[in-house]
Amino acid sequence: MTGSAALGDAGAFGEEGDAGLLSPVSASPLVGALTGDRAVLAAILAVESGWAAVLEKAGLAPAGSAAVVSAAAEPGRYSVAGIARRAQGGGNPVIPLLADLRKNVQALDGTGIGAGRAVHTSLTSQDVLDTALMLLARNTVEALLGDLKRTSAALASLAEEHADALCVGRSLTQHSLPFTFGLRAAQWFHGVAAAGRQLEGLAYPVQFGGAAGTLAAGTVLASGSSSTPFSLADALAAQLGLAAAPAPWHTNRLVVTSLGNALAAVLDAFGKIAADVLFLSRPEVGELAEPRAAGRGVSSAMPQKQNPVLSVLVRSAALQAPQLVAQLHLAAANFNDERPDAAWHTEWPALRQLLALALGAAGHIRELAGGLQAFPDAMRRNLDLAGPLLLAEGVGAAVAPLLGAKDGLTGKEQLQAVVDQTLQAPSGEQAATYRKLLRDAVPAGVLTDLRLEELLNPASYLGEAANISRRILAAFPEYAAPPEPSFTDANGDPRG
Amino acid sequence: MTGSAALGDAGAFGEEGDAGLLSPVSASPLVGALTGDRAVLAAILAVESGWAAVLEKAGLAPAGSAAVVSAAAEPGRYSVAGIARRAQGGGNPVIPLLADLRKNVQALDGTGIGAGRAVHTSLTSQDVLDTALMLLARNTVEALLGDLKRTSAALASLAEEHADALCVGRSLTQHSLPFTFGLRAAQWFHGVAAAGRQLEGLAYPVQFGGAAGTLAAGTVLASGSSSTPFSLADALAAQLGLAAAPAPWHTNRLVVTSLGNALAAVLDAFGKIAADVLFLSRPEVGELAEPRAAGRGVSSAMPQKQNPVLSVLVRSAALQAPQLVAQLHLAAANFNDERPDAAWHTEWPALRQLLALALGAAGHIRELAGGLQAFPDAMRRNLDLAGPLLLAEGVGAAVAPLLGAKDGLTGKEQLQAVVDQTLQAPSGEQAATYRKLLRDAVPAGVLTDLRLEELLNPASYLGEAANISRRILAAFPEYAAPPEPSFTDANGDPRG
Amino acid sequence: MTGSAALGDAGAFGEEGDAGLLSPVSASPLVGALTGDRAVLAAILAVESGWAAVLEKAGLAPAGSAAVVSAAAEPGRYSVAGIARRAQGGGNPVIPLLADLRKNVQALDGTGIGAGRAVHTSLTSQDVLDTALMLLARNTVEALLGDLKRTSAALASLAEEHADALCVGRSLTQHSLPFTFGLRAAQWFHGVAAAGRQLEGLAYPVQFGGAAGTLAAGTVLASGSSSTPFSLADALAAQLGLAAAPAPWHTNRLVVTSLGNALAAVLDAFGKIAADVLFLSRPEVGELAEPRAAGRGVSSAMPQKQNPVLSVLVRSAALQAPQLVAQLHLAAANFNDERPDAAWHTEWPALRQLLALALGAAGHIRELAGGLQAFPDAMRRNLDLAGPLLLAEGVGAAVAPLLGAKDGLTGKEQLQAVVDQTLQAPSGEQAATYRKLLRDAVPAGVLTDLRLEELLNPASYLGEAANISRRILAAFPEYAAPPEPSFTDANGDPRG
Amino acid sequence: MTGSAALGDAGAFGEEGDAGLLSPVSASPLVGALTGDRAVLAAILAVESGWAAVLEKAGLAPAGSAAVVSAAAEPGRYSVAGIARRAQGGGNPVIPLLADLRKNVQALDGTGIGAGRAVHTSLTSQDVLDTALMLLARNTVEALLGDLKRTSAALASLAEEHADALCVGRSLTQHSLPFTFGLRAAQWFHGVAAAGRQLEGLAYPVQFGGAAGTLAAGTVLASGSSSTPFSLADALAAQLGLAAAPAPWHTNRLVVTSLGNALAAVLDAFGKIAADVLFLSRPEVGELAEPRAAGRGVSSAMPQKQNPVLSVLVRSAALQAPQLVAQLHLAAANFNDERPDAAWHTEWPALRQLLALALGAAGHIRELAGGLQAFPDAMRRNLDLAGPLLLAEGVGAAVAPLLGAKDGLTGKEQLQAVVDQTLQAPSGEQAATYRKLLRDAVPAGVLTDLRLEELLNPASYLGEAANISRRILAAFPEYAAPPEPSFTDANGDPRG
Repeated sequence: MTGSAALGDAGAFGEEGDAGLLSPVSASPLVGALTGDRAVLAAILAVESGWAAVLEKAGLAPAGSAAVVSAAAEPGRYSVAGIARRAQGGGNPVIPLLADLRKNVQALDGTGIGAGRAVHTSLTSQDVLDTALMLLARNTVEALLGDLKRTSAALASLAEEHADALCVGRSLTQHSLPFTFGLRAAQWFHGVAAAGRQLEGLAYPVQFGGAAGTLAAGTVLASGSSSTPFSLADALAAQLGLAAAPAPWHTNRLVVTSLGNALAAVLDAFGKIAADVLFLSRPEVGELAEPRAAGRGVSSAMPQKQNPVLSVLVRSAALQAPQLVAQLHLAAANFNDERPDAAWHTEWPALRQLLALALGAAGHIRELAGGLQAFPDAMRRNLDLAGPLLLAEGVGAAVAPLLGAKDGLTGKEQLQAVVDQTLQAPSGEQAATYRKLLRDAVPAGVLTDLRLEELLNPASYLGEAANISRRILAAFPEYAAPPEPSFTDANGDPRG
Repeated sequence: MTGSAALGDAGAFGEEGDAGLLSPVSASPLVGALTGDRAVLAAILAVESGWAAVLEKAGLAPAGSAAVVSAAAEPGRYSVAGIARRAQGGGNPVIPLLADLRKNVQALDGTGIGAGRAVHTSLTSQDVLDTALMLLARNTVEALLGDLKRTSAALASLAEEHADALCVGRSLTQHSLPFTFGLRAAQWFHGVAAAGRQLEGLAYPVQFGGAAGTLAAGTVLASGSSSTPFSLADALAAQLGLAAAPAPWHTNRLVVTSLGNALAAVLDAFGKIAADVLFLSRPEVGELAEPRAAGRGVSSAMPQKQNPVLSVLVRSAALQAPQLVAQLHLAAANFNDERPDAAWHTEWPALRQLLALALGAAGHIRELAGGLQAFPDAMRRNLDLAGPLLLAEGVGAAVAPLLGAKDGLTGKEQLQAVVDQTLQAPSGEQAATYRKLLRDAVPAGVLTDLRLEELLNPASYLGEAANISRRILAAFPEYAAPPEPSFTDANGDPRG
Repeated sequence: MTGSAALGDAGAFGEEGDAGLLSPVSASPLVGALTGDRAVLAAILAVESGWAAVLEKAGLAPAGSAAVVSAAAEPGRYSVAGIARRAQGGGNPVIPLLADLRKNVQALDGTGIGAGRAVHTSLTSQDVLDTALMLLARNTVEALLGDLKRTSAALASLAEEHADALCVGRSLTQHSLPFTFGLRAAQWFHGVAAAGRQLEGLAYPVQFGGAAGTLAAGTVLASGSSSTPFSLADALAAQLGLAAAPAPWHTNRLVVTSLGNALAAVLDAFGKIAADVLFLSRPEVGELAEPRAAGRGVSSAMPQKQNPVLSVLVRSAALQAPQLVAQLHLAAANFNDERPDAAWHTEWPALRQLLALALGAAGHIRELAGGLQAFPDAMRRNLDLAGPLLLAEGVGAAVAPLLGAKDGLTGKEQLQAVVDQTLQAPSGEQAATYRKLLRDAVPAGVLTDLRLEELLNPASYLGEAANISRRILAAFPEYAAPPEPSFTDANGDPRG
Repeated sequence: MTGSAALGDAGAFGEEGDAGLLSPVSASPLVGALTGDRAVLAAILAVESGWAAVLEKAGLAPAGSAAVVSAAAEPGRYSVAGIARRAQGGGNPVIPLLADLRKNVQALDGTGIGAGRAVHTSLTSQDVLDTALMLLARNTVEALLGDLKRTSAALASLAEEHADALCVGRSLTQHSLPFTFGLRAAQWFHGVAAAGRQLEGLAYPVQFGGAAGTLAAGTVLASGSSSTPFSLADALAAQLGLAAAPAPWHTNRLVVTSLGNALAAVLDAFGKIAADVLFLSRPEVGELAEPRAAGRGVSSAMPQKQNPVLSVLVRSAALQAPQLVAQLHLAAANFNDERPDAAWHTEWPALRQLLALALGAAGHIRELAGGLQAFPDAMRRNLDLAGPLLLAEGVGAAVAPLLGAKDGLTGKEQLQAVVDQTLQAPSGEQAATYRKLLRDAVPAGVLTDLRLEELLNPASYLGEAANISRRILAAFPEYAAPPEPSFTDANGDPRG
């Protein structure tokens, strides 16, 4: 196919753009509605419309103009693909959209009140786009937090329900010590709740600086009125539900990198859970299983296969977030001049992609956490694989102080010798061997059979597992209870 | 806005997805046509359709089935957004697309020849998607190379045209030595041509391994026929114009990382040019200007402003490519099992984004290189800023050996003293001071006035600038001449 | 050279490791002292020593043992290179260091009090290394904040001193509107101060969870005493001056990613300044110059050249930070199990490298900000390059409302026509042409000559530049005043 | 601790720098010897010394000067830490090293032949440093390829030895189809060999362009001699064993990004193996175990634990490489001017770190591959977990064509019904259920009991596993046989 041949189809193909075919994690309608190009366009129009309202209220635009602009700013009037294409001319989408908006305002200004004077007056493209992306982010994060809190609440329930479910702890892939599934769920909760709290702490400030960040045009506009450029900026923030900003932040991108970092932190917490579920639901392990749903987890070739697709999707997002955060910092570090020569342009897709991935992943992990199946028998079976040797640390700590020196060996050394000797035995016999050698090494007067068996019971060596769980849940009470229900899920279907 | 409120609009918004509103560099219809979701879907269907043809030809599917599958695989029959949404279920788009394809095949199989037996038989999702992305990449790279070669040819012309255009070389932002704009253009050419040659060396192999990479189903399918799974794979490669593969490469992603790296290298070369043009076209410098075009470079606030938008867009792509290459390597390093649990899924959007950015940037840099305006007067003015001190290295090299020791100083040290003393003078007087001090320091018998003036002429200290340019152009002859013309530009308009 | 031949020199070469030869930005002794391997080793020993003190105080280790451990933990007793080499065995440096520490404790425990029982009891490697890196980070950030505040104070001074220094604002490389150098410095201040405040908000929590994060060994240890594992953890935090943690955070790495993000944000702010200084100190621009110092900025080939090395070094750090933040998020998202199988190991070098780069860059930017030379004449010359057309936005805003419709054109359109016509004139004549056309277009009765000249004076179109600067400084008062002086600079020389 | 207090120890701490304490994967003496700062310094000196030899041979430096320079360039004469510190002044280490070198040359030039004229004449820092890093890379890659080929040879042996070892294939964590450990090893081999071949294809060109890339000083130097700057560059390449370059490549970094990409590709291949080994050696899986060695894999807290440390270390390197490749591309895309204002400086540490990680990981994976323990019984046990349902794809392919339509269901649909019904049974009974339902569904006349059992034997459904392995090994014959032995391992101990 040559470029020119392909071009014949350009019209047909181009309109669809990227609908998420190659990004299943974020292919839900909710993600599209909140972060798609149509949402970006709507946010830009909301900023222009909000500004008209501010100007009219301040007496700086003709009475009635806000209503005209508002009508003209109805998103359905505009072609996303057409504006995207024309955005190549000036390097940003505000410029062509504004041209269309002005035309629509003029057309709707039937009585000729001069509503055009309320459009974009004293703003610059960056004011509009920065503010619009804050709006988009605010809306997306709000939805994301809903899913996140449903997730954390479900994890808190798992932590409580399985507080006594014995399993094995693992480090560097190997069994370390007895553990509980409740504590594992509590630590998952910990990650999600802490990331959520960081996300909730973010501000979404309005941007207003004018062409060079001096508010020059705004000063001319406001002169002679009772407003100042600063009061107009505050009014715009109030109008849009954003935070006020003490000064333009056009070249200081901490707001953007902080947002990106917080979204990535959410995906880190989700990714950690997904990694664990992916392992724990392997056939050889069998401790967990994802909730089933019709049509999910099927394979195109293997009729019997059931894939942990929710975790796969969540993990696919978590593996992409780090590079996107890097992209935002790279932009921030290259924000030269009063508006940079490309860095700003690299922020937009990275920030939007982070929002889409985080929201998409949140929908899947909510479902995962809400329906996760736990199999305590399998947990116990895996715990028993290592046998009582797993308790050697605890046995040593409890018994060594009770032993006197013998053959020049300290108590601790005598017990290490027992472990070493046990490891010589075939793996199937190590449990019995350890018991026997231990009994031989420790006089019954020092340790009764009963106390010995207690030491060899994994349930006796859980330390503060239950207390740690409780402390974690107590530290984030607002994440432990489920939020108010909403009525539809990420795909638009009714939600439980 | 709450999630559920937004959801009411999901249908309307979701269909449009990402049309490039936030990525102006790749918002051309050509990029959409070659890399958009519709193109991905078409490539998947082309693979399924090609496979049916292979099977029929090998006598492994009913006669006539390939034609039925081909008709059913017409991309217009399928909804990109619908398939993207359903891809959440299995984690990849092949699964839902296949379900629809099978239905269409059945519906079109009027005479009941059993055309369904030609669909996807013995393939797995990964076979189809890997092969489809190779197809997509091959098509995109082909178009990209067209633009790249037009760019390199234009740069070669600039190198020849401006071979004698004196300018100043710069290192760490400061003036270093006399230079020529011709050599600068030749080095830009060097970067583009070398990256192009690397890109041309890539292979696009077919993928065929079946569900686990053993070709098990393919073996059953081919048993009793004159084909083998290997011959079928080769036939599919031939059918699609891809390269044959000696073995399935489902878990070895060198093909993908090599492709990603080569695309990034192209963007590196473009990015270097854009960075230089952005500086050299600043008002304070004025050595270059981008070609003008109606509607390009305008500002939403400043009526007199003309922005170097082509370079800004190209640079915005070059600043994004590195993270995308990282994403591909990260996937390759995490390709666990016989098909991984997320790494594969992170490859798709990264590879596609690299293709889109590279192709988008190529269209812009082609136009930039083809119409770049050079201003030799400004180059000379900037060269003269530093005055003859810029030639101190050359003067030293030529004169020091002619001087005897004096006051315990070597010739080199005497000349350094001249430089040091010159630097004490006000900057406006340094040229004259340097001349005078130099004349005083070097006896006329050793160096005539004429020879001294020659040494202080920047044109005399260009070294091998012209020869280096010639060697570079000669090393890449196929990139120095313009390729065959095509008829439309990236936006679908006729192209010169 | 073959591997084995090289090996002959291994001993000699290996001991030196990386002394910063390839990272000049962080090659200062202060960076080495606070972040080098010797500092890491000292921090690990401080944790072990602090733990012994906690145990003794709690009556869980023999009286006198803390003193023995403290003496044994003197860093000078240990070989960094030797421990690094042996760390290959267990995958982390705590294991071999601990073996040596135990030997030293035994050797120093002359009276046989059993001081060994105070060493590492109930800790695991991760407890020690996580806590040690928090200690290292805390110390480094403390030093970094010193330099950062000296930088911000110097920028605040520049903002005040140059509040009226007219220059030109630039966007997408082109001149946009009149600006002041004072506002530019204030925005630099804004970036640095906001990043500093974020950094100051970080917590450095102690880590204590034991082998699997259940505090199992700690529970055994504390049983029968008045302590709990939680109280011991709090005591360790107090001992080391770290923050207490409600629970082990061994698998939730928000602490680490937040730290990394805050360090990168600091480097973003520094990088923005460096990018601006690099441009503004170019010979063609000449608005700024770096402070000079003996031996700085020299070239190996060009005797007259003076490179802006401080900015180059700072920018080199800013361009590296984004990938390091990505590395930390990648680790966090892959923190599988109760201790992961590589992710943890990738955190250490990334975090340390971020600390070293940030501290190194801070030393250079402190010097840069403290001695930056500003040249108002050059600023004004560059501002005048564009002539009065730069004020077209302001003229339009002020004059358009005064004009009636004429020839079917609105006032705004009449003024745009003036601009368009002016742009047809040769660039040298545009200033005069604009003045003349403007005068012709606007009746004197509507606008006096005096008022017209005022509108064409760039100083009249600065908007709220001065107020914005004031608001920014007022928002971060603790960053506007210089901190207490310290006595030596990053290279160990006395500091002003 | 305050900055100034720390500074008191700066001297002592600073000298050690980074010895690898936080990067165990690359803490071997071999890595230190080939990539440490001492090796960098030695490479710089080798370039200067090589250049002196070239100049003397060309008659452009006094007879005997090369010997003096060579003696002066003995690395032991120089302080790495001191030069690193002084490199802050000019931003690169060549400048201070050169100052010391010149002093040493003068001191050793006893008879006053003017050996100083052979030092650095007509070179610039970038010529020296770029060439030195090529030398360093060439040496490191040579050692790396030795380990890589030992690794691939060991994997080839595993592939052959275990060609018939039945195991299970896995996709998205779930069991897919029967597989062999031999094919898995062959695919590991595939990855390593393909990456190795790419690495072997790299060129290491000399850099020679002079201060601005015009060879101006070199032209003056060579004028009147029979040499040209190009012939001198070629002679330097020959002297150092590097490749000749047709032109200076000072601003085109394809050489560097290609090298980085190839190193990352090697680590990708290693990382894939490590990820698989880490999973397959988990206690629940038990199919593989790392080779044991004294002191390896121990835990600081758990006496019975044996960690797969080799894989952990290898994976830790593979997870870091992607960001380092990104760093190199980012530099290449920002290589503005004739020498850039920071991008170049960010290349050095990234390239060196990639070399160190790749060489370090290669040593570990060589040992891993050479001693990997395989447990066919466990492989078979895991394969049998899923029971005969795993063969449903193959049964369907073989049996469906034999069945007529029944109750309106095609043969394929009848078999899918069998699978669906089987999945209703408790997992322990699925094997028997599937057998029974299948027997019921397929008339004995169509399929004998014997043939049915054959279809349910996993060994019968391996497809072309053995042939694929053979094809892979045959495609890379030079990687399938072990290379010549060397005598010491990475830690300097004798090597088998």
